[in-house]
Amino acid sequence: MTNYFSSKFKLGILGGGQLGKMLLYNTRKFDIFTAVLDSSNEAPSKIASNEFHLGDLMDYDAVYNFGKQVDILTIEIENVNVDALETLEKEGVKVYPASKTLRQIQNKAKQKLFYRDQNIPTSDFTRFAYLSEIEDAIVNGGLHFPFVWKAAQFGYDGNGVKVVRTLEDLEGLPKGECIAEELIPFKNELAVIVARSASGEIKTYPVVEMEFHPEANQVEYVICPARIPDSVAKKAEEVALKTSKAFNHVGLLAVEMFQTENDDILVNEVAPRPHNSGHQTIEASYTSQFEQHIRAILDLPLGRTDSKVGGVMVNLVGAEGYTGNVVYQNIENIMKLDGVTPHIYGKKETRPFRKMGHVTIVNEDLNEARRVAELVKKSIKVISE
Amino acid sequence: MTNYFSSKFKLGILGGGQLGKMLLYNTRKFDIFTAVLDSSNEAPSKIASNEFHLGDLMDYDAVYNFGKQVDILTIEIENVNVDALETLEKEGVKVYPASKTLRQIQNKAKQKLFYRDQNIPTSDFTRFAYLSEIEDAIVNGGLHFPFVWKAAQFGYDGNGVKVVRTLEDLEGLPKGECIAEELIPFKNELAVIVARSASGEIKTYPVVEMEFHPEANQVEYVICPARIPDSVAKKAEEVALKTSKAFNHVGLLAVEMFQTENDDILVNEVAPRPHNSGHQTIEASYTSQFEQHIRAILDLPLGRTDSKVGGVMVNLVGAEGYTGNVVYQNIENIMKLDGVTPHIYGKKETRPFRKMGHVTIVNEDLNEARRVAELVKKSIKVISE
Repeated sequence: MTNYFSSKFKLGILGGGQLGKMLLYNTRKFDIFTAVLDSSNEAPSKIASNEFHLGDLMDYDAVYNFGKQVDILTIEIENVNVDALETLEKEGVKVYPASKTLRQIQNKAKQKLFYRDQNIPTSDFTRFAYLSEIEDAIVNGGLHFPFVWKAAQFGYDGNGVKVVRTLEDLEGLPKGECIAEELIPFKNELAVIVARSASGEIKTYPVVEMEFHPEANQVEYVICPARIPDSVAKKAEEVALKTSKAFNHVGLLAVEMFQTENDDILVNEVAPRPHNSGHQTIEASYTSQFEQHIRAILDLPLGRTDSKVGGVMVNLVGAEGYTGNVVYQNIENIMKLDGVTPHIYGKKETRPFRKMGHVTIVNEDLNEARRVAELVKKSIKVISE
Repeated sequence: MTNYFSSKFKLGILGGGQLGKMLLYNTRKFDIFTAVLDSSNEAPSKIASNEFHLGDLMDYDAVYNFGKQVDILTIEIENVNVDALETLEKEGVKVYPASKTLRQIQNKAKQKLFYRDQNIPTSDFTRFAYLSEIEDAIVNGGLHFPFVWKAAQFGYDGNGVKVVRTLEDLEGLPKGECIAEELIPFKNELAVIVARSASGEIKTYPVVEMEFHPEANQVEYVICPARIPDSVAKKAEEVALKTSKAFNHVGLLAVEMFQTENDDILVNEVAPRPHNSGHQTIEASYTSQFEQHIRAILDLPLGRTDSKVGGVMVNLVGAEGYTGNVVYQNIENIMKLDGVTPHIYGKKETRPFRKMGHVTIVNEDLNEARRVAELVKKSIKVISE
């Protein structure tokens, strides 16, 4: 077995954002040697990595040359050059998630087709090569309002997704490949993080419940465990496990799902890495999602996924109307509240809806944690100087 | 109020060992700009600091020049140049713990005298300027076997402490200033960590119980909460608070105590910083001791100090007979056990009894955590290549 706990082993991470930064707390805890590739010299995870490399994650040579220097390569963002990963795999570098998994996920149209092929429940959809084809379909009567437009590639954090109710809603959208999804009236958005190690050990985290900001389409609260009947939680877990099995991923797979009015579970989308819906695991779970991802890709035994206490996570996003050097207004006030831990990602500049951090609220009583989370949400404001 | 969560503020840490490393997880979490001074280029906390400075912690100029560049200065080890700290305080740098607190603690004879002056219960002792004076006292009948010899300065982690039962036991000990303490037959060694913020907010962690390795005089298990009657725990907490009040420290104060056969509480010694007896707080408590130290010295509100679950900590020390490049034998095996988190400090070379890491075991049932801790202790071994 590889001795990861020695300086002869090197773990590479594509992307140096906040997820990479939180991964690095755990590589430091285990004293695992890390190299990070990112295109920004101000990347949040620049500091805690052993080596920091500057380069474009979408560039074949940058990713290939970086990957050649490491033993195991992982990602903290899906938008990376997958061709380079495929070459690296052929040349013996362990890449988790695999290039195959990333290809299935990177393009949202392919991802939806994959669910259909694998009999994984998902909303109905139509694939379009160009935005203009959507307009044609509407005019021809082949597509009806309302529906959800999604860019096939490179959309995340609310970019690349829009509910379309009129032709005007299509104005200004990117012209390229996209899908039109049935708009699902749902009771809840749920998520399950599945961890799968290189040798196939599998564990699931409890089902969490997500509340989205209506305009920014970003998660406002993540509540763990979800306040849903056991039968629904069980169904969500089964669907997540089926999805995990279909992808055969190594590392984490965050499975986002809708709980419909009829308590059906439909897969919305997945992310093969630590995920916003798992940040509360740092304080609430026996094993944080970040430690678990490291355990999984290094083929170490997986840790317990159940919770010590109830957890609620609040995203800290840049307030509207503020752009520039960030200030976390009232952060001292929220730290007075019981069980509150702010996580500041270390991005110097704020802009509207940019993810700047998150706050976890834990309590033995989940309802109390939820109550405090609302106070947090009302107090703290991410503004500029 | 100072905006710590901006790049205009700089926190200095004297010492770059494992305690500094674990402090840095939290400065990174809060995105607080840090500078570390240490004499070794291989210091465990070199990586995660924003700035790393090489220099001798006992050297006036090194500490002074470093301290002039920061807004708040803290320590992770007591053996630093206190004269430099005093000058820095006069020149407006906030130093926590204060030079005065460190002077009271650095010299163990002074520390004992301080307890006596402050009516803090502690074992009887006699102060000696030289080791040879101990021999004289024995010959003159002024001192009787057995007693505990302690070097007045610079002893820690089992160096500088020895139970003396015969004249031969004195052989090879340092010749300088020392104390001879009454050997207390005790039921338990206990510890309480008290957090005190710059503006005087005070919180105590639960009483923990310590089991020491009989030879190395290093903690083998820390058990939180201590398995003692409530009345004893209450008394220990009161003594710790009285001690904290006497020192008027800012930051953490770890108070080590003996529970005597009669359930009296005697203060053994203190450390004005994160401490080995608080490592389990990372996984077991609402707020880790490291986050709490940061909150206290930055005068932020203190976090909850109670526990989410029961916690046991096992020190990973270098096995006897092994010196050289470290290997953590069977680390994968202990990671299979429920609730087990290894912390590897990142020191490249092991030697007998050197602190190389620790393992925390958490469980809703403390007895189960203690059972698993014994399995951990039996499995993992810190050896060399």
